[in-house]
This record gives sequence, C-alpha cells and structure tokens, in this order.
Amino acid sequence: MTDSHGRGTDAPLADLLRTDPRVVTAGADLLGQALRDQAVPVTEVDWRPPLLGEDGEDRLGEDRAGRTYRALRTVLGDARRTVANARALERMCAAGSELVAIRPASEVLGLEKGQFLHAGPPLEWERASGPMRGALIGATVFEGIADTPEEAERLLASGSLEFEPCHHRDAVGPMAGVVSPSMWMFELRDPVHGNTSYCSLNEGLGKVLRYGAYGPEVQTRLRWMADVLGPVLSRAVAAHGSVDVAAIVAQMVQMGDEGHNRNRSATLMWLRDLLPDLVSLGVDGTDLADVVRFVGANDHFALNLVMPTCKLAMLAAADIEGSSMVTVMARNGTDFGIQTAGTGREWFTGPANRPEGLFLGDFGPDDANPDIGDSAITETAGIGGFVMAAAPAIVRLVGGDVDFALAATRRMYEITLGEHPRIQVPILEFRGAPAGIDVTQVVRTGILPQINTGMAGAVAGTGQVGAGLVTPPERCFTAALDALASRATPGAEVGAVRA
Amino acid sequence: MTDSHGRGTDAPLADLLRTDPRVVTAGADLLGQALRDQAVPVTEVDWRPPLLGEDGEDRLGEDRAGRTYRALRTVLGDARRTVANARALERMCAAGSELVAIRPASEVLGLEKGQFLHAGPPLEWERASGPMRGALIGATVFEGIADTPEEAERLLASGSLEFEPCHHRDAVGPMAGVVSPSMWMFELRDPVHGNTSYCSLNEGLGKVLRYGAYGPEVQTRLRWMADVLGPVLSRAVAAHGSVDVAAIVAQMVQMGDEGHNRNRSATLMWLRDLLPDLVSLGVDGTDLADVVRFVGANDHFALNLVMPTCKLAMLAAADIEGSSMVTVMARNGTDFGIQTAGTGREWFTGPANRPEGLFLGDFGPDDANPDIGDSAITETAGIGGFVMAAAPAIVRLVGGDVDFALAATRRMYEITLGEHPRIQVPILEFRGAPAGIDVTQVVRTGILPQINTGMAGAVAGTGQVGAGLVTPPERCFTAALDALASRATPGAEVGAVRA
Repeated sequence: MTDSHGRGTDAPLADLLRTDPRVVTAGADLLGQALRDQAVPVTEVDWRPPLLGEDGEDRLGEDRAGRTYRALRTVLGDARRTVANARALERMCAAGSELVAIRPASEVLGLEKGQFLHAGPPLEWERASGPMRGALIGATVFEGIADTPEEAERLLASGSLEFEPCHHRDAVGPMAGVVSPSMWMFELRDPVHGNTSYCSLNEGLGKVLRYGAYGPEVQTRLRWMADVLGPVLSRAVAAHGSVDVAAIVAQMVQMGDEGHNRNRSATLMWLRDLLPDLVSLGVDGTDLADVVRFVGANDHFALNLVMPTCKLAMLAAADIEGSSMVTVMARNGTDFGIQTAGTGREWFTGPANRPEGLFLGDFGPDDANPDIGDSAITETAGIGGFVMAAAPAIVRLVGGDVDFALAATRRMYEITLGEHPRIQVPILEFRGAPAGIDVTQVVRTGILPQINTGMAGAVAGTGQVGAGLVTPPERCFTAALDALASRATPGAEVGAVRA
Repeated sequence: MTDSHGRGTDAPLADLLRTDPRVVTAGADLLGQALRDQAVPVTEVDWRPPLLGEDGEDRLGEDRAGRTYRALRTVLGDARRTVANARALERMCAAGSELVAIRPASEVLGLEKGQFLHAGPPLEWERASGPMRGALIGATVFEGIADTPEEAERLLASGSLEFEPCHHRDAVGPMAGVVSPSMWMFELRDPVHGNTSYCSLNEGLGKVLRYGAYGPEVQTRLRWMADVLGPVLSRAVAAHGSVDVAAIVAQMVQMGDEGHNRNRSATLMWLRDLLPDLVSLGVDGTDLADVVRFVGANDHFALNLVMPTCKLAMLAAADIEGSSMVTVMARNGTDFGIQTAGTGREWFTGPANRPEGLFLGDFGPDDANPDIGDSAITETAGIGGFVMAAAPAIVRLVGGDVDFALAATRRMYEITLGEHPRIQVPILEFRGAPAGIDVTQVVRTGILPQINTGMAGAVAGTGQVGAGLVTPPERCFTAALDALASRATPGAEVGAVRA
C-alpha cells in the first residue's frame, strides 16, 4: 500500500526524522528537560495521580487506594451533590460583609478571664508548637493571670486555663490567632445571610503576639491597643455606621493586594472610609495621630478585616448537606484542619507542612515553624494564594516568580466549583477568582490548594522569620472525602467515576 | 543530486505540502487573517514604515521622505548623541521629588491678576478649543475679573488678559491646566538636581474647571479649595516636612496605578503619609473632615502630585545638547507639542488627535474634544500609558483589553532609551518602566508614544465626557528630528542609518 505521495505506509514513521519533533510530557520531567536542552518544543501536561491517602500505609497501598476510589465514586454519585454545591457556591459568593462594631472580646464573645481562643483545629498544650505556646503565654501575662512568662507556662501546662479554636466562635485569628477577653475585636455582619464573625485588631509586624513573641514590647503594644486604638476606632465606627468591607475586598484585588500577605490598599481604603468620622470625634490630638500613624504604617492592618469577611462568606455556605465544598482551612502550628459544607463542624486534620519561601534577616528554613493561622480562610474564600495572579508583587515577599503567581491562580480553577462574580483578576481579563474548593476535585486531580503565608519562628518568643508558600496535607481531603461518602445519599447507579 | 534521505533536491519544496505550514506576516493582515481562518499558525511581525513626515505632502512623497531620511542619518551620526542620551536618561531616572510646600500661585509663581497659565504649547484665544475657553472663562470669573461668563469671554477675546503655557513656568496642569493667581499650588523640589515644579490641586471629576466647566458648582468648589483645602494641607505639609512623592510613584505602580488615569493608591498613600500631622494641627473638626473626605473621595487627587514629579524628572534631563530624548509632551486641546533635551525650550507641534475610548453617560465620540492637557508628562517620564501593563484595571476606564495593556508597555520599549531602575512593572517580572522616549527610535520604527487620557467635552462648559487612548501626531517627531539635525555635530562618517 502506498499513500497519495507514492510513499510506503512506513512513511509516517520516517516523517518523525524528517520533521521537527513536538513532544507532550506528563509527570516526572526528566525526558522533558533532556528534550528542551536539545531545543525541542515540549508541552508539559500538569497531570498527577489522584490523592490516594497516606494513612501510614504505602501511598499506592491497595487498601487505602481502593477505599479512596470507592469514596470518590460514592460522593460523586451523591444525588444531592450538584445542587448542594451550586447552592454552597451561590451563598458563598452572595455573602456581604459589613464592619458593624469594635468591642472587647469579653463583651462580644463572652470570653471570661482564663479563657482563650487560638487558630486552627483543637489542640492540647502538649502538642502546641513554639509560636502557639508563646502567644498563649503572652496573652496569659497580658490578662494579668500570671506575672511572668514562666508562671504563665506552668499554668497553661497545668490545664487550669481553657483554650479553644477561634472557628468554634465564628472568629478567625491570623498566625497563632490567640484572643483573650481584654482584646478588642472587629465585629462583622453579613447583611444577606445574617451571620456574624470576629477578628482581633492587627498588631503590625516583627515581634508581635500572633507570631509567638510575648516580651515587654508586645505587652506594651497590646495594652495601648486595648486602651486607645480599640476604643477610638470603635467610636469612629459607631459614628460612621457600618463599613462595607466586602466592597473593599473586591477593590483590593484590582490594586495588587491578594488579601493574605498583601493588604496594603485595603488598609488605606478602610482608613479612608472611616477618616471623616474619625477626625470629627474630638479625640485628643496625640491619640488621634498615634492611631492614624499605627494603622497607616501597618500594611497588614486590613488582614484582620479581610479574614472575617472571608469567614462570613464561608459561614453562608456551611451546613449544606451533600456539598463537598471546603468551608474552613485553618492551622494551629501543629495540625492543618479543614471543614466542608456537607459535614458540619467536623474537623479533618493532618500534620501541618512547613512553608517554603523567603526569610527575614539571618533566619533560615530551620527556624520556621510549621504552617499556622486561620488566615487560610482567605484561600478558602478564593483570594490569598488563589489570586496571586492579581498581586504579582507578592512574589517579592513569599518567593516564586510572576509565572508561578499566574500559574498558581490558573491551577486553582482546576479544584474550584466556579468563579467569583465580584472578585475579579484584572490580568486574567477580569476572570472571577477561583471560588469554592471542591474536595472531590482536589482528590481527583491531586492538586492541593495554594496558600501563601507568614512564617513564625519555631521557638516561642521569636516572632516572624519570613513568608512563603505552602499547601495543606493530603490527608485532610481524603479524610473529608471518607466522611462525605459515609453521609452520601445514593443517586442514579454510577458505573464509573464522573464529574 | 540527492539528499541524505535519497530524495531529489526538489524535496524541500515538496515538504511545503507534507508538513504543517508556519507563516510569518508583516504589514496589512489580509494574508494572516485568511491563514488563521484555515487554522494555520501565523506569527505577525509588528513592522511599519518609518515616519516620513506628513507636511501636507504625500506621506511617501519623495521630498519629505528624503528629508526625513537625511535628518535621521545626521542625528544618528551626531558624535555627541550616545553620551548625551545616556546622560539624559541617567539624570531623568535619578531625579527625586519632594513635596515641600503648598502655596497660592500668586506667591509661588508670581502670577498677577489677569495672568493665567494653561496646558500644552502656546495658544491664541482664536484657536482655543471649547474646554480651554471654558476653563479660562471660569478662571476669569473665579478671579473676580468678570462677573459673568459672557463678560469673561469678551475680555479674553479682546486680548486684554495674558495666558501662557504652564511649562514656561516649570508647572504642569491636567486637561485645560488653567492656573490663576488665587489657586493653591503643590510645590515640589528635586533634591538631586535642585529643580522645582508646580501643579494646582486636583478638583475631582465631573463638572470641573480643568474639563472646561465653569458654572456655579465649579466656582463654589474652587473657592473652598482656596479658602480651606489649600491652607489646611499647606499647614500639614509645613508640620510634616517634605513628602517623598518619588517613592509614592514607584510604589503606586506596584499597586495597579499607572499614574495618569489611575492614581488611587497614590492618593491614599499620600494622605496616609500626611495624616498624623494633618490631624494634629488643631484645625476645626468640620473643615478637617471636609478635607479628608474631599481628598479620600477623589481617586485622581494624586495625579497633581505625580505630574510635577514627572516634570522634575524631565527638567533634570532638559538642555543636554546632542540628546534626542523627549522632555515634554503636552496638549492644549488644539495642538500637541513636544520638546527634546537637545533643543531646549523649542516646541514642535502638530494637530492634537482625538482620543478613542469609553464615554460617560450619553456622550459619544462626536462630543469629545481633541487631546488636551500636560498630563502626558507622565508618559514622557515612563509611566501612564507606558506602564499600562502594571495597571490592567485601567482598560475598564480607557478601553482596550488586558492584552492591549501588556502589548502597549512592551511596544514602548521599542522607542525608549532604557528601563527605569526604580519604577518597575511587576507583571513583567519587575522589568523597569520604558523610560526616555527617543525621537530617532519613534521616527525609525513608526511607533508613537501610547498615551491614555481623560476626554473633555468639545463644547465649553460641558466637563468630562470619557477617557481613552491616543497618540501624538507624527509631525511633532519629524519636526523635532529636523531641528536636532540642524544642530548636529558630525561624527565619524555614517554610511547608513544605524542605531
């Protein structure tokens, strides 16, 4: 047989040598790199095997793998899933966020002396990392329960003080996220769904409580924040009326902020909005100058407004039976925990990874604590690491390069249910932010949520050592999948895994 | 003869049919479009013929073309050119900018009653466009020289009032750029080179003087700006000491502002910097609230700080014999004018183009005045349209899409002498802004500087009708080239046009 050019049928093979090769690769890049070295165009397909779990077994162990595949099939076949996920996404994206008051935690959360909140899933003192211990020690001294850090540590270790996750009170806290009764809290309300969320006031950078520092400068700052900053801002909010923080979040993503490690424009917009009322309070000029200087000099001040805004979005999507959407991602410095819309307040945890990134001063990778903080609520809500493409300047802080930032955002569309109608990424032609992490898509694709984060020193009292990039441990998602499977309502017979 | 595969030498031609075609096109896109319709990959080369002048002759007319080629050869062969351009670029990029005072134009510029400044190159009343007439009418009424717009117009037409370009006093003015003695001016100093520049305070958007409106609301606002805004801000600057505006300009480009039509983050950063001193002045609470509300609510407020900062950069590069770098681009609504480092204060003008873009409300292209304003000093200094890639959200205001914004910035590297070391474009991996427009590169490539701009209504009194994209007329550059050629110092014999 010959083709139309009169060549034998072996011609297609021979063409391999006559024409320029074009190669598609997947998985390990050994072949791709060798080809690129020879100037051959290579298209990489970013494929990886599904997450099969890693519960102490071989990653590809038949039992665990079989179980994950069965769970995936069951959840994907859940008759309620499509409608439930659409409803979760719709509610998440429709949520509003208004700052309605600033009040002490004792008043607004009913927190009593000796009670503390902390970031992430539940934790015992024995398993707490350095920065978490440092922050709890600092808060115990701040509340006057102990006179020295040593005494505070003894009390905390003795079990005579109580601490529970911020999320259990619909609050969120960056890094260690420790809240004590005397701290003033932002109180935000979702006017659409009626939920309320809370976050403390941001202390700034360097040696601060949330990074595990607890020395005199930390105590002095916390005291001033409780005596001056909180009360003054509280009066300004009362005079102003509610501040639309959801609008600020949408706008900040147009201004190079991703809302997790860049909150520069959001801080300035919030201050701008409050300013006419703030300057009309008749507050002592020195205090007023100190307040505007403190807020204006802290590019992260609005993080503590963005986080509870994200929490409100996720609260709107909580408790929707049949939905496989992630509603919480949070770390306590030891464990990473997630919650999903379809499994209520149950935590699915795994050991927190250590971020990779850029370090301050003389610090290096050995100084960094594992991932810590409720601030991954930003990624849960579709901003932070999910909109790095909108904030390319972030790579100067957390590492990576601009290509990585663009790729990270694009990759997140693979594991999310939709695009946020109000939060748009200009550089991607105003495409909506990747919104609503779907446990089944994470497990099927093996793509983990991209988080960018601050890094706390591993030793209590150190403070911040850097900022970097991190992902959750896989097992949060395989465990959540198991739980979703156990609650699934079978739908039509499902012959094979389908989307 | 046969090749190593035993094929005849006609094989390469035959391969055209066997392998997928890949095509490179230049110029008119008819062929490219036809190929793309057939799914053939096409690489377009953005080539266009050099600017050959358009002085009423055929664009390719032998005389003008010959003259331009001769001028280009002469200027490129100028022995001083390489060093002069390097020096101009170095001085431009090294310039600092500090806001040192806010004072009335009468005091700071010695402007007397009946004297006005305006945007762009020199202009007579008879040739002035609607918005320029409107602004001059408004300023005449504001100064109490006339009681009615009609009386003002008669006086202006009679020649009894004086007006000259802002640039002649080292000032710059957005849009009509009209300055009168009672208006308060930002006074900025370059601490590196010792130059000083000036700009009025920004009025906000809508019916404002600089867009040619002059009605009662314009008069009321100008009065408040002179009575309250100027004096209060002036005291704050005096208390604060100089404000580093050059640093703000570098930072704003990291925050989605391009400095011409987006000045949102710059406005907030400037207000933030001044705030502690502003709130400590003991100013009446209502006035203080009005001031922070007015500044905070006007995303363009910092344009009037960015423009004189760019003017300082270009003043540092002025008067360098042998340099073909553009130091001024400015429009008066009728003419577009440029100046170059090698030709002193001489203007090279051509008819201003009409911007294309997006319109407010019911306005359309027929309502727009030709290009107007000194604000193209931003592009002259390497920001504005030159860093659209850093401000993709700008396309929602001026038209185009994100690809256009990226392409515009990349294209500007073709006509600029270097990259700005301090002003960086994050999305282009922090590449420095395209800095220092070179007349010879503009003429050789036919690529005109990309300007984005506000659009004034063509009828006096209308105000803003939209915002859009525009380029200078070619003849500014061919005329400047002629002047540079006439001043050239021959170098080594130049056989052909070279860079």
